Amino acid sequence: MNNSKPYVIGIDMGGTNTVFGIVDARGVVLASNSIKTAKHSNINDYIDELHSEALRLIRSIDAEGKIYGIGVGAPNANYFTGMIEDGVNLPWPTPIPFAQMLSEKFGIPVAITNDANAAAIGEMTYGAARGLKDFIMITLGTGVGSGIVINGQLVYGHDGFAGELGHVIVKRNNGRLCGCGRTGCLETYCSATGVARTAREYLELRTDPSLLRDLDIDSITSKDVYDAAMAGDKLAKEVFEYTGTILGEALADFTVFSSPEAFVLFGGLAKSGELLLKPLRNAMDKNMLSVFKGKVKVLLSELKEADAAVLGASALGWEAKPATTTLAATATAATAAPQA
Amino acid sequence: MNNSKPYVIGIDMGGTNTVFGIVDARGVVLASNSIKTAKHSNINDYIDELHSEALRLIRSIDAEGKIYGIGVGAPNANYFTGMIEDGVNLPWPTPIPFAQMLSEKFGIPVAITNDANAAAIGEMTYGAARGLKDFIMITLGTGVGSGIVINGQLVYGHDGFAGELGHVIVKRNNGRLCGCGRTGCLETYCSATGVARTAREYLELRTDPSLLRDLDIDSITSKDVYDAAMAGDKLAKEVFEYTGTILGEALADFTVFSSPEAFVLFGGLAKSGELLLKPLRNAMDKNMLSVFKGKVKVLLSELKEADAAVLGASALGWEAKPATTTLAATATAATAAPQA
Repeated sequence: MNNSKPYVIGIDMGGTNTVFGIVDARGVVLASNSIKTAKHSNINDYIDELHSEALRLIRSIDAEGKIYGIGVGAPNANYFTGMIEDGVNLPWPTPIPFAQMLSEKFGIPVAITNDANAAAIGEMTYGAARGLKDFIMITLGTGVGSGIVINGQLVYGHDGFAGELGHVIVKRNNGRLCGCGRTGCLETYCSATGVARTAREYLELRTDPSLLRDLDIDSITSKDVYDAAMAGDKLAKEVFEYTGTILGEALADFTVFSSPEAFVLFGGLAKSGELLLKPLRNAMDKNMLSVFKGKVKVLLSELKEADAAVLGASALGWEAKPATTTLAATATAATAAPQA
Repeated sequence: MNNSKPYVIGIDMGGTNTVFGIVDARGVVLASNSIKTAKHSNINDYIDELHSEALRLIRSIDAEGKIYGIGVGAPNANYFTGMIEDGVNLPWPTPIPFAQMLSEKFGIPVAITNDANAAAIGEMTYGAARGLKDFIMITLGTGVGSGIVINGQLVYGHDGFAGELGHVIVKRNNGRLCGCGRTGCLETYCSATGVARTAREYLELRTDPSLLRDLDIDSITSKDVYDAAMAGDKLAKEVFEYTGTILGEALADFTVFSSPEAFVLFGGLAKSGELLLKPLRNAMDKNMLSVFKGKVKVLLSELKEADAAVLGASALGWEAKPATTTLAATATAATAAPQA
């Protein structure tokens, strides 16, 4: 933090929307807005709109010249290189030197990382992991992501891609096909999508009645399964037991790696409460190496959902360092911009 | 390092022997010796003998007063607490405040950690992992141990017990019983013991001829399997294929955690060469998440076997910090000791 520059911008780039906000050092989102990620077929047009909309936001709270840095959570974003790498569902050709492009446009240091890492940094800075030096963030959304913190530092690994725990193989034989091209990955079972897949499997393989049989089987979502389970549906409850058990077994395995003080669960599925947590804790305890038994907490994210992604990204903004190419840009775009 | 104290002592405590040596900053073992670990039923007698034998060694190379610190690799030794914790096959009641006891006896700072972590530190300081900031040491001995280095730092985790990768569960159903009380742990398949178990299983379940059938099935060792495989025995070669495949699958999974630049294999089984490495590399490549494919090296330890454990422990000696209780002991036991 810097007294004359008390704010950071957090940007959460998703395939559909890009949400951004101005955040102070205590994690208060002072103002936020969003643009459509896929509106522009040219990345430069996207950055132009992001820049002008962010400037408008900056001016709306009289924050010109007061932005310390920008943090971005984006799919396949590499902290080390500042690149959005290949293999991601965005409307532009990859790799994209996104940190550099954004830094040149704004004249402010930019740091980027993937969304799960951003969530971990946010949770450590503002959420359930405050004060924890060793924890693992598990994001349970469309996929399963993770951000690993060891000794207070996010683990980026040799190439910046560490922490892909959604792609640990939990079923070595006859596992489900994953978007990564392999089979049996954790995220094919324990994501929102995985819950829906399990429900469809159960409905096809079993004959017992279920509220879910009233729905179109191909469009069942994890929310449908949750609603059915909360209404007492046995099959739907068993879907959560299956999901929680596999996740608990995996968390026990992850524990032997870095011996975390806690796992922090984040994302839609984490809000399933005891439906997921009870079988998860049971399986984790049953499969835990004795030296770790009873030591590892399972926490739920404390970040407000609407702010979480922006907060997480913004926390990274405090770490952003000026790139060599932008060192000369002391009069930042935000400062130099004419008043609207 | 310290110019006036250019040496460290490395101590490798095993269940049978305790090997110790005096090592300089370049990793040269100037003198070494060993005592029988289990000879003394009282831990104080053991420390007395270790101390007097180490002093004899120190004097033999005129190193009185020149020892900077002592590093110890010992089973279940905790770097944070300095304790040898419960659940280990030693002749004394645990937990043992070993670092403190040794430091008080020698009047020199002592740091302890488990044997696999010591090996990782040794490899990073003197061996195949010199210059690597992100690697994972896998020790393939009676069990499977590991030492994880991230960003140049050994990972101890929240409680000091991180890096127990031998206890990742690789067979969730119908796995082999492990010494830890659970089933399906990596070390039940990929240790020297695991190789012998696989050979016994194959001999019982199959009917094809094998050189191993000439041996007493219950006393077959991994060395027997290696010798038979080198002599062209098909069954024995398949034992190594099975072992290497499981280890390669596991290493691919470990990669998504910390994205290491390399795995360094250490211990007796690592010397099986291509018998183990070929199936290992195949399985690792086949199971690797695409973003990591072709990036992760598999290296063999470069530490001389006789020196490896002592060197690894000694490297930790440079990190040893005076304990509060021994700060006053500026006249170290080694310095103060009368000349023999």
